[in-house]
Amino acid sequence: MKVGLDVGGTKIEAVAVDGDLRVVGRVRIPTGWGPDAVTRTIVEAVRALGTEAGVDLALVRSVGVGIPGQIEAGSGRVVHAVNLGVEELDLVAALEPRLGVPVRIENDVKAAALGAYALLSGAARPPRSMAYLNLGTGIAAGIVSDGVLWRGARGTAGEVGHISVDPNGPLCRCGQRGCIEAFAGGGAIAEHWARRSALPVRDVFDAADAGEPSAIQLRAGLARGVAAAIRVLVLTADVDIVVLGGGVTALGDRLMTDVAAELSASAEASPFMRSLRLRERAELLPPGSPAAALGAALVGAAGDARHDTQEALIHG
Amino acid sequence: MKVGLDVGGTKIEAVAVDGDLRVVGRVRIPTGWGPDAVTRTIVEAVRALGTEAGVDLALVRSVGVGIPGQIEAGSGRVVHAVNLGVEELDLVAALEPRLGVPVRIENDVKAAALGAYALLSGAARPPRSMAYLNLGTGIAAGIVSDGVLWRGARGTAGEVGHISVDPNGPLCRCGQRGCIEAFAGGGAIAEHWARRSALPVRDVFDAADAGEPSAIQLRAGLARGVAAAIRVLVLTADVDIVVLGGGVTALGDRLMTDVAAELSASAEASPFMRSLRLRERAELLPPGSPAAALGAALVGAAGDARHDTQEALIHG
Repeated sequence: MKVGLDVGGTKIEAVAVDGDLRVVGRVRIPTGWGPDAVTRTIVEAVRALGTEAGVDLALVRSVGVGIPGQIEAGSGRVVHAVNLGVEELDLVAALEPRLGVPVRIENDVKAAALGAYALLSGAARPPRSMAYLNLGTGIAAGIVSDGVLWRGARGTAGEVGHISVDPNGPLCRCGQRGCIEAFAGGGAIAEHWARRSALPVRDVFDAADAGEPSAIQLRAGLARGVAAAIRVLVLTADVDIVVLGGGVTALGDRLMTDVAAELSASAEASPFMRSLRLRERAELLPPGSPAAALGAALVGAAGDARHDTQEALIHG
Repeated sequence: MKVGLDVGGTKIEAVAVDGDLRVVGRVRIPTGWGPDAVTRTIVEAVRALGTEAGVDLALVRSVGVGIPGQIEAGSGRVVHAVNLGVEELDLVAALEPRLGVPVRIENDVKAAALGAYALLSGAARPPRSMAYLNLGTGIAAGIVSDGVLWRGARGTAGEVGHISVDPNGPLCRCGQRGCIEAFAGGGAIAEHWARRSALPVRDVFDAADAGEPSAIQLRAGLARGVAAAIRVLVLTADVDIVVLGGGVTALGDRLMTDVAAELSASAEASPFMRSLRLRERAELLPPGSPAAALGAALVGAAGDARHDTQEALIHG
């Protein structure tokens, strides 16, 4: 049995999975703020798998944690997890004594990419390569090929959100203009919308449906940014498919219809783009899939001596 | 001994390399037009290594060919090599009986990427991952990690030339607007310049130096497109370094000065971009390096039973 946790800005999702990667227990609890509270609520989430989901914690062999921020390669340290109030935290050192099993951590988007790949690997024709495009407050992707995460040289692999696609586009919080994230990031859209809401992007879609010009413009920018990210991922890494996940994908088909229209427009303009069949290669993560927590469980188990590689975990 | 050939639109460059990847012979001959003439001139180039460069052809164990166009994975077939007058050609079937050794083929940019990586792997601190960005008539890249080429799912890995970075930019021959290639491709620049010249891009730089507005604009677009390609490669694949090669890099430091200024401008606007240190990660392939022919030799030898992988060839 392995446990995986997806530590988000508001909640922690924890799953326990068996040797066949079946989810045998799943809980959600609120995330604490700051290094100590984040550590404490992670431990609480693992315990809640026992008390609330009936998981026999004595059988757990590893814990993996997906968490926003930069993870120093080969370390257990997370840096700049600003949404959690964490500037720097050696999470593995903090968790292992309290949990009593090996702990590994990974950036949350990268963990979700591994989890999404594992979910797809059960399909009739599993992809050899995949990008998981996370549409949340920010925009970033994780690239997986043959079950292995593309790590890159310095931790920025998949940071497609900060590619500028319009020199006259909106200012991005990174300082550049026209970044994909400045068009399509949930945070950027909420800032431009400037009305309080649980899910501002949904309000923008509703207002656009009602004909409000500023909402129509924001909604068009979202589709444009997402389509641009898909094109970048296919034209650079040539992944088989791009799986969209993250908070903004709660919009489901309303989002996908807009994105498909954007992709169709470039396919109509360009035979080369048409040959890429981008519409067929982009899909939504099934709603409610615990991709990030499942991926975190895989990351955790990769530190377990019984398994050599993540690939073995997924395929073997 | 292994032979590698870089088949260009006007000339074929052939090299013979020894077991330590030292170039022991090198010749250039004009490329024929159309399937039969391309095949014939490749055979002539190999023979010229014997007659003109003194290579003992009896010692050659493999031949690799880098050629423009699409290479069907696992086949010896090249498709859409329009600059060579080749719509479709089973080059391996045509060459092996005439050369009497195993032949393998690869797209020329991908071969050059392997060659550039091999050249760099002799450096004091060889990169783990690298993108070779080819600035020729068109723009495309090859990505190499740990000596292995990133192949992608459908043959479009590294096709960064057709990522649009400006919805109001120039029309690209692919049909989209504002593609990186529409700004920085040698073909696009020559078309806009519309004056006959051996190297129109050099004329554009000279005219820009002399203050001609249209030339200044084209020159700025070139730097902008190249800088955008470097950003895309680092933000998506996070390669250690980006090596620039291809005909347009004959401009050398004049090009690099402009590109460095573009990269500095985004670094000044954005702390995140500054943290990527893009200026330090972009470099020119040394002038006259036979990267593509050398890479082709590696591709050819990968079919030789004495070697298991390209990685073994490069590192072992």
